[in-house]
Amino acid sequence: MLKRLLVELGERSYPILIGSVLEELKEQLPQYIKGQQVCIVTNETVAPLYLEQIVEHLSDFNVLTVVLPDGESYKTMATVTQIFDQLLENNHNRTTTIVALGGGVIGDMAGFAAACYQRGVGFVQIPTTLLSQVDSSVGGKTGVNHPLGKNMIGAFYQPSCVVADTRVLKSLPIRELSAGIAEVIKYGLICDAPFFDWLEQNVGKLMAFDDEALAYAIERSCENKAKVVAMDEREGGIRAILNLGHTFGHAIETAMGYGKWLHGEAVAAGMVMAVDLSVRLGWVDAPLLTRLIALLDAAKLPIKAPSEISNARFLELMSLDKKVIDGRIRLVLLKALGGAVVTSDVDIERVKETLDACKG
Amino acid sequence: MLKRLLVELGERSYPILIGSVLEELKEQLPQYIKGQQVCIVTNETVAPLYLEQIVEHLSDFNVLTVVLPDGESYKTMATVTQIFDQLLENNHNRTTTIVALGGGVIGDMAGFAAACYQRGVGFVQIPTTLLSQVDSSVGGKTGVNHPLGKNMIGAFYQPSCVVADTRVLKSLPIRELSAGIAEVIKYGLICDAPFFDWLEQNVGKLMAFDDEALAYAIERSCENKAKVVAMDEREGGIRAILNLGHTFGHAIETAMGYGKWLHGEAVAAGMVMAVDLSVRLGWVDAPLLTRLIALLDAAKLPIKAPSEISNARFLELMSLDKKVIDGRIRLVLLKALGGAVVTSDVDIERVKETLDACKG
Repeated sequence: MLKRLLVELGERSYPILIGSVLEELKEQLPQYIKGQQVCIVTNETVAPLYLEQIVEHLSDFNVLTVVLPDGESYKTMATVTQIFDQLLENNHNRTTTIVALGGGVIGDMAGFAAACYQRGVGFVQIPTTLLSQVDSSVGGKTGVNHPLGKNMIGAFYQPSCVVADTRVLKSLPIRELSAGIAEVIKYGLICDAPFFDWLEQNVGKLMAFDDEALAYAIERSCENKAKVVAMDEREGGIRAILNLGHTFGHAIETAMGYGKWLHGEAVAAGMVMAVDLSVRLGWVDAPLLTRLIALLDAAKLPIKAPSEISNARFLELMSLDKKVIDGRIRLVLLKALGGAVVTSDVDIERVKETLDACKG
Repeated sequence: MLKRLLVELGERSYPILIGSVLEELKEQLPQYIKGQQVCIVTNETVAPLYLEQIVEHLSDFNVLTVVLPDGESYKTMATVTQIFDQLLENNHNRTTTIVALGGGVIGDMAGFAAACYQRGVGFVQIPTTLLSQVDSSVGGKTGVNHPLGKNMIGAFYQPSCVVADTRVLKSLPIRELSAGIAEVIKYGLICDAPFFDWLEQNVGKLMAFDDEALAYAIERSCENKAKVVAMDEREGGIRAILNLGHTFGHAIETAMGYGKWLHGEAVAAGMVMAVDLSVRLGWVDAPLLTRLIALLDAAKLPIKAPSEISNARFLELMSLDKKVIDGRIRLVLLKALGGAVVTSDVDIERVKETLDACKG
C-alpha cells in the first residue's frame, strides 16, 4: 500500500510517499538523490530503531551518519553546527543530499543544515512521528530555537521527497501519537469540516495505530496543508491560519520550559482557547467547543492550559510570538467549522476571559 | 548623477542605484523598507565614517544599529549570532529590514542574518568598497566562513535594493580600490572584451578615484554579472564562470591565512594562473596573458602567487573548493578574451606547470 501525494510548488514541487514505504526505499529513493554523497541526520532514540535499515537501502551511495542527542532543547545553532562540521570533515560537496530521519526537531535542523550548507544542498525527509508527517512534511519550514524565542532562526527550504511510513509510528509512545493527532484535528477545524466529522468517527482507530486510518489521516492532512501553502509559500497571509492554537500554544510551551509539554499538546489546549475566544466573539456556536473538547479528550490530549501561568505572563509571551506585526497581537480564530480567519481586531478583555476560562 | 540598474529576477528583481546616492537616500530608501523597524549592520571602521549620516536619513524609522568588529576573521556564525541576539533583544519582528553598511564581509553576514532571521526579513545593501559594489551587489550570495572552508555556510538571498555610492570609495585605502578593480577586470575577461579594452584605456582614472569612470565601471560590471546570474540564479551551471581565478585565489587566501591577502588580490594572481593555463592548453594566445599582466600591474595588483605554497598544498586546497563536483577539480578557463568556459577536463600535469610558472 503506497499513496503518492504531489505538493505543487512549481519547480520546487515534490512527492510525499505515504504507507509502508520503508520497504520500498531502495527503489523509490535514488531518483530523489542527485549525487553520490548522502548524510543521514538522526537522533539517539531513532538511530537504534531504523538507521541500519535505511543505510542498507542506500548502499549504492557514499553514506555519512550524524546521530544527535534527542530533544527540543538541542534544537540550536550549536547542534546544526555539528552537522556542518561532520559534512566538512568528510568532504561532502554541494551535490550531497541530507536525509532527515526523525521527528520535527530532526527535520527542522537537518532541513536548515541542507538550506545553508554551501548555500543549499539536496534534502529528503523521513519523518518518524505523526506530528512531523502531517506538519513538517509540507511547508518547507526549517530552523532552530534561540534562547529568546522558538524557531527564530531558519529558512524556507523544500525537500525533494518526503517518506511518511505508517508502520514506524507503532514504535511511538502513545503521548507522541496523541500530539500528532492534535495537528490532524487542526486541519479539520481550519479548512475541512467533513474531515473533522471523519475524525470524530475514527479517532479510536487512529489511537489504535490502524494503518489504513493513519494513512488516510496523513494524506488528508498533507493535502489540506499543501493547498494552504501553495497559496502562500512564504507565509505572507493566508498561510497563517495553519497557526490556529499556536499563539496560545507557544506561550504554554515557553512558560513551562521547552520540552515539558509536547508541541501538539500545547496546540491542543491552544485550539480550545482559540475556539473558546471565537465563541465569546459570537463567531461560532458553543456546541463546536463541546465537540472539539470531546474529540481532544478521545485522543487523550489536554483541554486546559496550566493554571500556574498568569494572564500577564500569557499575554507577554503571546506578543513576542512571530505572528505579531508592528506591535499588535494577531490571532487565528474560527468563523465556522472549517473556516479559519486571521484577525488583529480582538478586544484584549475577551482574550483575558478566555485565559480565565481555559486554565485548570 | 544617479544611474539606476535593474537586476531582473522575476518577483525578486531589484534596483542598483549608482552614483552620488547617499545624499538622496532620504527620498530613495523608504520605498524599499516595508515595516517600521530597521537594523543597520556595520563595522568599527565604517561606523565612524557613515553611520550617523545613514541614521539621519532613516529618521522616520525605528532604527537599531549593530557595530561588529572589522575583518574577514570575524565572518563567522558566532558573529551572525550577535546580530540575531540584538534583533531579538530589541523585539524586531518579521517585518524588520536589515541594512548592510560596509564591505563584502558585512554584506555577507548581514544578508545571511536577513535570510535566516524569522526565516527571512527585508534586506538592503549599502556596499562601501568597490569590490562589494561590483561583486556582492548582484547574485544574492550570503554566508559565513567555517574553520574548514570559506563561505561554506550561507544562503542565496536577494536584497530589495542596493546603493552603490562612488564617493564613499574615496575613503578606501588604495589597496582596497585595487582589489575591487581585480573583479572589474574579471568581467572583461569572462564575457565582455570591449570592456576589457576600455579598462586598458581607463585604469588610470579608476586608480585616481574618478567618479564618472568608477560609476561606469560599477554599472558595466553589475550589468555583466546580472546577465550571468539571471541565466543561473542558484549556480547550477553557467554562473560558475564568475569564479574565474577563484579556485586558485581561494587556495592562496587559505594557505596564507584569511585576511593576509585581500580577496581581490588573490583573484588577480588567480586570473593570471587561469589565463596561463588557458595559454598552455592552446585555448588563447600568449599576448592576452601579457595584456592581463600589464593591466593588473597598472592597478597595482599582484601577478604572482606566493612562492612558499608548494604545488602539493595548492592542489590539496583547490580540491576542497566548492567548485569540485564528485571529486574532480573543475576550473574556469578562457577560450577567448570575453569567452570563459567551465571545464573538468584538464590534465593535472598542465596545472602543475602553471603553478610552477606563476609563483614568485
